[in-house]
Amino acid sequence: MSSTAGQVIKCKAAIAWEAGKPLVIEEVEVAPPQAMEVRVKILFTSLCHTDVYFWEAKGQTPVFPRILGHEAAGIVESVGEGVTDLQPGDHVLPVFTGECKECDHCKSEESNMCSLLRIDPDRGVMIGDGKSRFSINGKPIYHFLGTSTFSEYTVVHVGCLAKINPLAPLETVCVLSCGISTGFGATVNVAKPKKGSSVAVFGLGAVGLAAAEGARVSGASRIIGVDLNSDRFEQAKKFGVTEFVNPKDHDRPVQEVIAEMTGGGVDRSVECTGNINAMISAFECVHDGWGVAVLVGVPHKDAVFKTSPVNFLTERTLKGTFYGNYKPRSDIPGVVEKYMNKEMELEKFITHEVPFSEINKAFDLMFRGEGLRCLIRMEN
Amino acid sequence: MSSTAGQVIKCKAAIAWEAGKPLVIEEVEVAPPQAMEVRVKILFTSLCHTDVYFWEAKGQTPVFPRILGHEAAGIVESVGEGVTDLQPGDHVLPVFTGECKECDHCKSEESNMCSLLRIDPDRGVMIGDGKSRFSINGKPIYHFLGTSTFSEYTVVHVGCLAKINPLAPLETVCVLSCGISTGFGATVNVAKPKKGSSVAVFGLGAVGLAAAEGARVSGASRIIGVDLNSDRFEQAKKFGVTEFVNPKDHDRPVQEVIAEMTGGGVDRSVECTGNINAMISAFECVHDGWGVAVLVGVPHKDAVFKTSPVNFLTERTLKGTFYGNYKPRSDIPGVVEKYMNKEMELEKFITHEVPFSEINKAFDLMFRGEGLRCLIRMEN
Ligand SMILES: NC(=O)c1ccc[n+]([C@@H]2O[C@H](COP(=O)([O-])OP(=O)(O)OC[C@H]3O[C@@H](n4cnc5c(N)ncnc54)[C@H](O)[C@@H]3O)[C@@H](O)[C@H]2O)c1
Ligand SMILES: NC(=O)c1ccc[n+]([C@@H]2O[C@H](COP(=O)([O-])OP(=O)(O)OC[C@H]3O[C@@H](n4cnc5c(N)ncnc54)[C@H](O)[C@@H]3O)[C@@H](O)[C@H]2O)c1
Ligand SMILES: [Zn+2]
Ligand SMILES: [Zn+2]
Ligand SMILES: [Zn+2]
Ligand SMILES: [Zn+2]
Repeated sequence: MSSTAGQVIKCKAAIAWEAGKPLVIEEVEVAPPQAMEVRVKILFTSLCHTDVYFWEAKGQTPVFPRILGHEAAGIVESVGEGVTDLQPGDHVLPVFTGECKECDHCKSEESNMCSLLRIDPDRGVMIGDGKSRFSINGKPIYHFLGTSTFSEYTVVHVGCLAKINPLAPLETVCVLSCGISTGFGATVNVAKPKKGSSVAVFGLGAVGLAAAEGARVSGASRIIGVDLNSDRFEQAKKFGVTEFVNPKDHDRPVQEVIAEMTGGGVDRSVECTGNINAMISAFECVHDGWGVAVLVGVPHKDAVFKTSPVNFLTERTLKGTFYGNYKPRSDIPGVVEKYMNKEMELEKFITHEVPFSEINKAFDLMFRGEGLRCLIRMEN
Repeated sequence: MSSTAGQVIKCKAAIAWEAGKPLVIEEVEVAPPQAMEVRVKILFTSLCHTDVYFWEAKGQTPVFPRILGHEAAGIVESVGEGVTDLQPGDHVLPVFTGECKECDHCKSEESNMCSLLRIDPDRGVMIGDGKSRFSINGKPIYHFLGTSTFSEYTVVHVGCLAKINPLAPLETVCVLSCGISTGFGATVNVAKPKKGSSVAVFGLGAVGLAAAEGARVSGASRIIGVDLNSDRFEQAKKFGVTEFVNPKDHDRPVQEVIAEMTGGGVDRSVECTGNINAMISAFECVHDGWGVAVLVGVPHKDAVFKTSPVNFLTERTLKGTFYGNYKPRSDIPGVVEKYMNKEMELEKFITHEVPFSEINKAFDLMFRGEGLRCLIRMEN
């Protein structure tokens, strides 16, 4: 039992007071965890595009003031009533979607979309009592994705915490908490390329490169990277991408270019852009008879997917995935082991690092499209 | 060796002289089979919608005069050079799509879309020499789907013939040559419902009822039939359909009605209408997290499939299938065995019968939407 258990903790957090305004590091009060909740000391967090989307709040419900952050690694400080799976000192990765282990989705082998703890970006409070655990001078500060990792301490539902091997370096496995698991799982759990097969990856950001890493690990012999930004290719080579196509270099649809390169289409494709045209191309570029396309990118809310139904009748499959189809508590510990056993590489995803006090620099890097993941080191 | 081997055979065939005009029974000359071809004596054939589409030739390339027919059962009369798998006397089902056993598709476990012998409704000749084997007074009569079963004798590529158990009653297994295998295979090979699951079937014609039969055989506990024609329901009960929804009875999309009936959506759906709205509803009515929808119906050539990409991201899968994903030569003999072992029922699909001389009555029944399959008994 830590000496802080049951007490309010005062610590530093990066507050988003308003949409689009730089975060401000402030002292916040973090209430003790209630039933089925866990208070976690965050050691590392990294910036993901989703944080930026909800910070910009363009076309999103604005929920401010708020503590953003959802890709992180930490150590359990104390647990609330009813929590039996975790205890102080356990190493954990918070995850933006949960696993209650009791709903239809958690009981299904196929789904990871827990009915109770499914992602809900509009919710700024804990599901137990509808209240926030963060406050400044008694005024609540809202949560984000049930994780709010841009704080030295945070409170998370037990269902949103993966307990991992305590020997795993938290500063590295941190990135498995969101983007890298999403892309890697999209390939290995959903697209499932066979050894020697061809895979196209649309979008060579962190998620797409994680999808490419999944293809490399699966033994794909051709990994075709597709991006509108040709600068992405040099970096992509480290992730096993063997060929590159920039749709802008061609005056016909990229799916036709890929079909020609591969004698009819790739065996698998994984779309990691969020762009609807890329989604359609990713589907139409797979081979008839056996091709499988997997959508990962989060589209604009009014986007419409359009294709000829004949593309399905000729035996193509289209699927989508959410967090790479991983169940956070059941599966993520195993993904950490994969890293520990050198079956997958993570270091190459972490291209930058800043101390917590300079968290706004991580936002600047993302705006400039520099690098993949910027690690934010907490200083407590 | 039959006495007719190597000779031209004169026999009766039903000729479609022009689009939309009643067939005329005429004497035709059927040339001997060339390399890799087989001449088959047809004993039974049945009428499928696809025959009617190409007879009407609305929006299709008109190829006349032509011998239609592709759902049939017969006996090998003689074989051409290089044919080693079949010999005179073998019982066979001709299939509109083939299996060369050598192309990428035939070698893939997942595909049945043979590159060499894939369906090509515009082709009216044999692939070997680009000529027809049928003639009247020296004038060629075109083939249809490589089968042309509305003739007492026909010539078929060896790759388009399934050799079946000689004890199987040809007048019954005849319907496995097209529609019933298509619907049944769509469920058992592609949708793969688990025991106790829920399945929606869109379109309760022969193909849809075969899909329902597949769901029944798979142990589905709820089979929801969807059709615009409520008269279809009574008959559908014999095929295991437990509930019925007519989209016309509701003032909201049928996918919402089904989601409400099933607490979020069905586990599987199979679309057997050819209507693009039904295709979209069939996809959107499956449960998030694990739902799989399978398209079977042949759409209008300008149809566009439209849906929100979020329906994929929430972990729904959409697939299409062609001939129920069966490889004609490798798999159809096993489907015949399933019938022989009473694992599936076929008699209930055959609701009418006419002699060959009255083949136009089968067309009339189809126009009136009466019954499922009309068996045409050859009289030679
Ligand atoms: N489903 C999930 O669980 C989940 C989780 C995390 C992220 N995501 C989504 O995955 C996507 C990728 O995330 P990221 O962090 O790698 O983003 P990113 O912005 O770093 O990378 C996206 C890449 O796609 C490229 N791109 C954009 N439009 C394109 C087009 N039409 N064709 C080809 N390339 C195109 C961009 O140039 C960029 O390099 C985003 O949409 C994100 O929201 C989904
Ligand atoms: N993919 C293949 O290999 C293959 C093979 C054979 C047939 N088919 C196709 O399968 C489809 C069904 O064939 P069939 O012989 O059973 O046809 P059918 O005409 O006997 O049955 C179709 C049924 O669908 C119903 N229907 C039409 N529009 C509908 C809608 N919007 N919602 C609900 N129900 C609707 C009709 O009322 C009818 O009962 C056709 O499109 C046919 O071309 C495909
Ligand atoms: Zn759950
Ligand atoms: Zn993220
Ligand atoms: Zn047919
Ligand atoms: Zn083939």
